[in-house]
Order: sequence, then structure tokens, then C-alpha cells
Amino acid sequence: MFCDIKRIGTGKGSEKGQKRDLALIVSDVPAAVAGMFTTNQVCAAPVKVSARRAATKFARAIVVNSGNANACTGRQGMRDAEEMTRLTAQAVAALYERRNRKESAVTDYRYRRISAQDVLVCSTGRIGIAMPMKNVERGIRECAPLLARSTTNARQVAEAIMTSDTRRKEIAVEFKIDNCRVRIGGNCKGAGMIQPGMAVATKHATMLAFITSDVAIEPGSLKRALEIAIAQSFNRITVDGDMSTNDAVIMLANGLAENSKLGARNSRFELFQAALNHICLELAKMIVRDGEGTSRFVTLHVRGARHARDAETAARSIANSSLVKTSWCGGDPNWGRILCALGYSGAKVDEAMVDVGYAKPGDRKVIFGFRRGNPTNVSLQKLAKITSAPEFDLHVDLHAGRGEFVLYAADLTENYVTFNKGDVNDPATLGG
Amino acid sequence: MFCDIKRIGTGKGSEKGQKRDLALIVSDVPAAVAGMFTTNQVCAAPVKVSARRAATKFARAIVVNSGNANACTGRQGMRDAEEMTRLTAQAVAALYERRNRKESAVTDYRYRRISAQDVLVCSTGRIGIAMPMKNVERGIRECAPLLARSTTNARQVAEAIMTSDTRRKEIAVEFKIDNCRVRIGGNCKGAGMIQPGMAVATKHATMLAFITSDVAIEPGSLKRALEIAIAQSFNRITVDGDMSTNDAVIMLANGLAENSKLGARNSRFELFQAALNHICLELAKMIVRDGEGTSRFVTLHVRGARHARDAETAARSIANSSLVKTSWCGGDPNWGRILCALGYSGAKVDEAMVDVGYAKPGDRKVIFGFRRGNPTNVSLQKLAKITSAPEFDLHVDLHAGRGEFVLYAADLTENYVTFNKGDVNDPATLGG
Repeated sequence: MFCDIKRIGTGKGSEKGQKRDLALIVSDVPAAVAGMFTTNQVCAAPVKVSARRAATKFARAIVVNSGNANACTGRQGMRDAEEMTRLTAQAVAALYERRNRKESAVTDYRYRRISAQDVLVCSTGRIGIAMPMKNVERGIRECAPLLARSTTNARQVAEAIMTSDTRRKEIAVEFKIDNCRVRIGGNCKGAGMIQPGMAVATKHATMLAFITSDVAIEPGSLKRALEIAIAQSFNRITVDGDMSTNDAVIMLANGLAENSKLGARNSRFELFQAALNHICLELAKMIVRDGEGTSRFVTLHVRGARHARDAETAARSIANSSLVKTSWCGGDPNWGRILCALGYSGAKVDEAMVDVGYAKPGDRKVIFGFRRGNPTNVSLQKLAKITSAPEFDLHVDLHAGRGEFVLYAADLTENYVTFNKGDVNDPATLGG
Repeated sequence: MFCDIKRIGTGKGSEKGQKRDLALIVSDVPAAVAGMFTTNQVCAAPVKVSARRAATKFARAIVVNSGNANACTGRQGMRDAEEMTRLTAQAVAALYERRNRKESAVTDYRYRRISAQDVLVCSTGRIGIAMPMKNVERGIRECAPLLARSTTNARQVAEAIMTSDTRRKEIAVEFKIDNCRVRIGGNCKGAGMIQPGMAVATKHATMLAFITSDVAIEPGSLKRALEIAIAQSFNRITVDGDMSTNDAVIMLANGLAENSKLGARNSRFELFQAALNHICLELAKMIVRDGEGTSRFVTLHVRGARHARDAETAARSIANSSLVKTSWCGGDPNWGRILCALGYSGAKVDEAMVDVGYAKPGDRKVIFGFRRGNPTNVSLQKLAKITSAPEFDLHVDLHAGRGEFVLYAADLTENYVTFNKGDVNDPATLGG
């Protein structure tokens, strides 16, 4: 099953580079589909289209482009997103026709026609520019035949969806269910405009992840499994606190592994869930590590909040504070700024109860800078030995309840600003 | 009436410089007092002390230092803040004693003893470091006699409270009530950790403003007037979205103008309110214009929201978005990022109804980049002619109701990051 790509030039900016920027992900047989999309009220046309189609339980293909987000593009944007799914269905159907004529022993489902309704669409890139549909049409037409030549071009999909990413993000796992070999593969993109808050069938944003599997599973169970995995991964990362208009995670599972179909009551479901959780968490962390201009990866544990919601509120306030993020950039264990961000977070905080400490990644030995309302006698220089490493853990305990939250966050650097600020003297950099 | 200063060195960092860093503001007669303080739950000891004393209606003096915030300093911090007020009362009382012996025709109230309860205290600077009380004590002792020599050292107060500020921030107005000349003077500091959200008698943050007047006014009316003025000024600014642990605005009005005492029912009250609004707004704008590393001042008008609260939510989301702020840094009229920040703000937004446009400061001619759900045909280059100026207006209309909010905001620059990031190789920069 799956995927191929070709450079088509979908955005003003992308015309310059030579990067591939369109990919098709196709399953030969109908696949159970699940999708979660940005909760941003201003969401891109492809998100609206895909959210609707992800709700229909089965799908065949995904068309995705980078360079142009097709967001804030009005009615034309909706027409273009739908047209992209129609063009994809057409091109894939034509491919099957040709293959059908050549081959004799192909199974029935290979001939099954594919309609626009079976196709989901994702876009990422500039906001507010109409899709260059001529390029897109040519791209889809030229891309489809490549599907016939190879069935494992996942790497090129991971490349085609990159925008400001500096590296491909992909992962795969293999395990057994009922003695059947099951595989799950995933890839994603995302570097800026990253603080996803995804929900089922809502609107849009700009981290994209595509997960494909040959597992046999009920669509309802797939949806629940994806929700659980995303809640613990993509919805727990932040680079710059901006929730995109195009964020989407889409999963297709086509059943070719021929395991006994997974449902919530199946005892092997937990194994599948664990594998999916792993895939999503690793992909999500890759996004933070490749965050625009970032130099540090921080795992922030908030504990002891009144409830989980308070823990999340506190964590996001800390990880999105400009002052906290700049201190991380300098490797400064500035726990004063962390307490400040905690205090205005909206979570219930009693300063006299709070602990703030640091640890090496995954290390259980936490060194505290502030404990129960008082500075400890550990110097900032000593704490800086931990916080000047490229990765470290930050532990905050509010001692007010049992609420917990883990957030994967990045620092704010001069390079982030330089990368994102545009330049009035270079029109090509405006609106990017 | 009022003020004098001397360099005492209240913070680790400030020891190096030669800047004055302690000021006393003293009224010879009991003054009506009003104060508003940060709503940050983690608030500095001086905020806790001053909020309590501002509620007592009358006060005599304020002692303020820069360099050390006396925040997150536990019980010792509370003792130190109270000690600062005691030392101030003692030094000022001693001064009156001496003056009393020399002069013969002094009026009674000049002899009135002043107690610690009559003194408010403010601090700004590093968080989490104990106050160097020996220095503070010496500073107050050496500072008090200067009060006798001059009665108009407001400029030096404005200088003494500066931290990362690059310039003094002060303003004064004069007007007549009942043929009596009334004066109001104000000064403030603030450059980073700026998104005040102040309320009466709450906790703490790091923009400080001191407003003094000789107007005769009921304490209750003064408090209401200050609340109104702050809601339209200091609570409408943001530099980096961080609400400090020490923010405070304190006003003293001692009645020496001898106008008939202002109360809510007095017809001259509106004149006084207008003057106070002007003072507060100008001071607030000075803070944004001097924001750490900032290069642009943006007046953001949000209109047509469901209600005022939604308008404020939308405005703060836009003005605190890292991506919006970096685009401002580059002079990029990137309305796509504005729509994105609007969409995730939490305010009710219907993309198809939204307008986004720019204008020169105060200009009624708005040039729209996005209107009613569609990009206009105005190019980004054309819009950049407005947004590349040091100051411009941003207009957002949601067309969903009558809610309005104006927010004064700044961009995010590489210099902000450089200034705030600290350096692990230079211990003196850690924790700043």
C-alpha cells in the first residue's frame, strides 16, 4: 500500500526550492480511517473537508501538499480542497484501470473505483494565498503512476510534507497479533506554529502526521485508540504556543495483516494501543526537537495540582512564557520566572507549597531550586549544570492535589525570531 | 512634598552599576492612598504589605527599590518588606524632629509622627534573592535627609526605579478646580515581564507606577478613579505577555491644593478623572515603547466581538502570539498569523465575518488585507508600507457584536531574547 510524491510547487515560496511538495498516500483496499484536527476556529479548507470525511469510517487515500496551507482562502479554498480530492480519486482510478488491463490475477478489490469521498486532503504552508491549482493538478497526475512502481516510499512522503522542518520525521513498529505480523508506520512534519490542541472532527492547524497500518480494526476502536494516543503525545507539545489553522493527524488501517479484527473487547487491543502510543509520542517529540530555531528540549512534569486540568494550565503557562523560554535558551535555571508564570497561569497555586527542581532527562534525582515557598541553598550555577544540556527535565510540584501533566517544550531563541520575522525589503518573505 | 533617592545596591546585579536604586516618596501631611496590584498568585512580599496598607485609606510614604524584587523569598521576605517600612518611618520621623528644632513657624501636621503602618513598599528586580537589608537600611538612612533639601526630585525617583528601562518615564499635568491649582505627577518603570492585570488589594508584578497629587479627594473616590484609569491604561498593555509578581500602581493625594474635597458627586470629578486617565495612559504607553528589545509599537483595536471580554481575549491572543510578534518585528503585515491567533484565542470567531486591516497611527483610513472571510486584493507589499513604520494601528473587526478592546503591544525581537536569555558562562547573568 501507500504513497508517492513529486515536486509541484504549491506555494509562492516553494517555487524557488527543489523540494518535493506533494504526496499521495493510497490504500489498495478500503481502510478504517480516524482523524483528529485543530480546534482553531479559523481552520483551513482541507481540514474542514477531511474532518467530514474522517467521520465516514472508511477511506482510501490522502493527498497532502506543503508550501500553501489553503487557509483563510474563502470559498475558493473550499472548492480547491474538494477539487484536490477529486483529482486524486481520478488519477488513482486511472492507475488501477491501466494495471487491470496489464495484470490478469489481480484480486477484485484492486479494481474497485475510488471516489472523491474516499480521499482526505491536508495542506501546510502559507496562509491566505489561493492554491495554484494548475500546478496541483499536474502534480497529482504525475504523482499517481509512481504508486505503481513502489509500495514503500514512506520516506519521500515524510520529505514532501516538510516546510520549515530541518529533518524528516518517521518511525515504524512491527508486532504480532494472533500470529499475524502487524505494522504501523508514521511520519509527521511541524516546526513552528506548534501547540496543537486537537479534537475529533473540528477544524485545522500546522502539524501534520500520517499513520498507516495493516492492522484489522473496527473504525470506532481505531478512533478511540487515536484519541488516546494523541492526548498523550501531539496534544502535549509546544514550540511557540501558536495553535495552527491546519493541524491534522490522520490514520488509515486497511486490515491486510489479516489478524482477527481488533475491537475494544479484544485482548490484543492493549498491545496495539501501546504501539500506537509509542509511535505518536516519538513523532511528537521529534517535532519539538526540530522546533524552529530551538536549542533545548524540556520535559516539564507538573504534579500535585488540584486536578489534571489545573496541571495542564500550569504547564502551558510555564512552557509558553517568553521569559521562561528565553532563560532556557541561555541554559539559565531561572526558577523565579517559572514561579511567576505559575502564579498568573490561572491554576490554583499556593506559593508556600510549591517545589521547582531540575533533573537530567529521565533521571529520578531531582535537584530543587525552590522548595515549599523558599529558595533552597542550591546555587544557580549548580542547577545550570543540568539546564545547560540540550535536554533536561523540569519538575514542578504544587502539593495541592493529584493532578498531573507532562508537556514537551522548547526554548525561544534569536534564531526563531530571525527565521519568522520576514523582511520588508524582500517581498517573498512577507506573509510566510 | 515628596521624594528623594540614593544608590544603595539592593540586588546582586545592581552592585556593579552606579545607578541610584532606592527612593522615598513622602507626603508632609496624611494623603489619601489608592493602590492596585498584580493578580499573580505568586506575589512579592512588598505587594502583600502594600496592598494591606493601601486599604487603610491614608498613608504618608512609599519606599521603593530596584534591583531586587523581594519575590519568592518566603517568610524572610515578608519580614524584610515590613522592616523597610519601619526603617522609612523612623528615618522620616527623625528628619521632622530635626526640622522642628530648627524652624519655628511650622504647622502642626509637620510634627505628626509617622509609623510603619503609614508606609507602603515596592520592589522590582531579581526574583528569589533575599534583600540585602544592611544596604537597604543604610540607603534609607542616607536618603531621608535629602527630602529636606529639595521638594521636587521626582526625576530622580523615576531614575531610581528603572531596571531594564532605557529611559525615565514621567509626566505631570496641572489644572484648576474651584480656582485652586491642582497638580498630578506620575512616573513609572517597566520594560519586560509586562502584561499587567491589576486589581485592588491582590498580589504582585513588575511594572511600577507612582502617582502623586495635591488634590483634595475622598479616599473612596480616589480608589474608584484609579481603578477606572488603570483599566484603560496599564491593564491594556503587553510587552511579552508575562504578568509580573510585583506590579503595583500607587497614588497619593494629600489635599494641599485646598480645593473643595472631590467626591463622586462633585461636578469637578470628571475633570480630575480625565487628567488621571491621561497620566496613566501616557505612562502605560511609555512602558510599551521602551519594552525590552522592542522595535515597534502597535495599537490593536478589536471591535465587533460578542462582548468586551471576548474582544479582550482576542486582542491578547493576537498581541501575545510569538508568530504575530515576530512578523511585526520584520514589518510584515502577516494577517494570516493574526487570523490564526484569533481562531485559537477562545473568543467566538466566524472567519467568514472577520476584517483585518492596518492604518497609520490614529489614521481613520484603514487598509484591509482580509475582509469578510476573503483576502482583499491589497498586496502585502502595500500593507508593509504601514507596518514597517515604528508605530502603526491594527484593526480587527469580528462583526459578531459590540464588544471592543484596545491593547497597546510591542513586537518580539532577537534583542529581547539576547537580553533575557542569561549566559551559563557568566553566573551574574543567571536568574535575572
